Amino acid sequence: MDKQVILETHERIQPYIHHTPVLTSQGINAIVGARLFFKCENFQKMGAFKMRGATNAILQLTQEQRDRGVVTHSSGNFAQALSLAAKSLGVTAHIVMPENAPQVKKDAVLSYNGLITECESTPEAREAVSQRIADSNGLTFVHPSNDIDVIHGNATACLELLEDYPDLEVVIAPVGGGGLLAGTALAAHHFGQHCKILGGEPFEADDAYRSLLSGTIETNASTRTIADGLRTHLGDINFPILKKHVDSIIRVEEHDIIEAMRLIYQRLKIVVEPSSAVALAAIIKQKADYKNHTIGVILSGGNVDLKALPF
Amino acid sequence: MDKQVILETHERIQPYIHHTPVLTSQGINAIVGARLFFKCENFQKMGAFKMRGATNAILQLTQEQRDRGVVTHSSGNFAQALSLAAKSLGVTAHIVMPENAPQVKKDAVLSYNGLITECESTPEAREAVSQRIADSNGLTFVHPSNDIDVIHGNATACLELLEDYPDLEVVIAPVGGGGLLAGTALAAHHFGQHCKILGGEPFEADDAYRSLLSGTIETNASTRTIADGLRTHLGDINFPILKKHVDSIIRVEEHDIIEAMRLIYQRLKIVVEPSSAVALAAIIKQKADYKNHTIGVILSGGNVDLKALPF
Repeated sequence: MDKQVILETHERIQPYIHHTPVLTSQGINAIVGARLFFKCENFQKMGAFKMRGATNAILQLTQEQRDRGVVTHSSGNFAQALSLAAKSLGVTAHIVMPENAPQVKKDAVLSYNGLITECESTPEAREAVSQRIADSNGLTFVHPSNDIDVIHGNATACLELLEDYPDLEVVIAPVGGGGLLAGTALAAHHFGQHCKILGGEPFEADDAYRSLLSGTIETNASTRTIADGLRTHLGDINFPILKKHVDSIIRVEEHDIIEAMRLIYQRLKIVVEPSSAVALAAIIKQKADYKNHTIGVILSGGNVDLKALPF
Repeated sequence: MDKQVILETHERIQPYIHHTPVLTSQGINAIVGARLFFKCENFQKMGAFKMRGATNAILQLTQEQRDRGVVTHSSGNFAQALSLAAKSLGVTAHIVMPENAPQVKKDAVLSYNGLITECESTPEAREAVSQRIADSNGLTFVHPSNDIDVIHGNATACLELLEDYPDLEVVIAPVGGGGLLAGTALAAHHFGQHCKILGGEPFEADDAYRSLLSGTIETNASTRTIADGLRTHLGDINFPILKKHVDSIIRVEEHDIIEAMRLIYQRLKIVVEPSSAVALAAIIKQKADYKNHTIGVILSGGNVDLKALPF
């Protein structure tokens, strides 16, 4: 059933998203000893895969719900994605952001006509404020990663990759909140040919790794990783999908993430955010296991502070 | 006649080069008030358009000449291009580099099997040493920009761009040694439809601007520009082509180059070297003249020291 839903989702969101290109590098292939195919969601509208899920979530609303608007809490790419998707569809988006969010992120949301409500910088405050806005105005709350419509939207990146390269033996995506990896796993399961499904995760925020080990959702005591997009935790909708379809999660050190990021800039000549580099770092770490394999790597996004590049 | 030669050149070098993609950005279009099409030679093999001209120059040699090898002087992209093109074709390439060239550039040449001969860091020393190597070993000297085979090779970037977007009203390329702009001008003249041909040049190394004004080749007393690929001067083979076909050269300040480079990283999500940003900086500066035009921008390359990004 997911198979049909993902195809319908792709059909539905197609007018609002880019079919992103797939890049390769002989240099990186030589380093890994395998053939890597990079799905470049850094070239997606607003610069990240999040545009896919946000667009799908809004398109699933009734006209009445659209008239009332949507609300989410995010200081990252989903804030921009929901704002832009809403703008494209004539819907009002309210974004709850911590008061200490960087001005550049607020500006990006404002440039897409998102309405910002500030809150204290705690998960509890974010959720409470979002709920209050939703309740008082009859808005629909859209979660950045723990929402099945968002997950199905995210799945279309891997669907496109497998349409372009049906014979991939492995697909890997970074895992933070779990929305991208869940979508990738569904797509790889239904459209791949016995395709192995991997996640890449920083040691510094390895809740997904530990959750798969224990069988219940674990959280992070701290998240001191450069991969700012992966500092979130799993939810009850995406976790069961990961449990069912993900073969393993590979954890990487911060210096491995930075080295992989440098490789991507130097060899692929593209701008990605640190979270994207986590997937390549994971494959490099375990390269002995994937010698001569064909591997799809989802590069999640390219919204990075150019003043704060780690090299 | 050039028209036929460029088509044959493209046919000849095609197996050894990438047909590079063309990217667009709604954000940049909005800033310029025009429709820009970026020809991404940063995705070319070894990371720059130079691969086209170097490959063509070697393919034009007789078997006896190939057996003897080639020599050039360059501390930049042409050193890598000639080395890689030679390696692909089983030819030996000698590269004369100033003794103070950065180790990273020497390493790149070595990685493509180029043989490095060091010389003093003056134009005279470079030329004298190259000549001595050529004479003593019977090698063929290939100039990085002032060589008609190199120019025809370079022309194929704009040829591909016009095959993809035949209706461009303007094409612009950066100008340093003049080899890229000469090739671009020939292609735009022969394959464009009354396409206006522009060059972008730093004020800090504006010899091409002054040469077109005076009608003779002018040189730079100093070349203190961040656009390291444009610190060279025109030659007697490319200058007549510029005189005949280039409509005007737009000079830009260093801060304009840096701002355009930042825009390319931020909006196009790609890695380019400062020289590439000069063309966009020029269009932004003169945007009032090109309102609503369709404009092709040749992004020359992406080999940049990531530790020394200017933002």
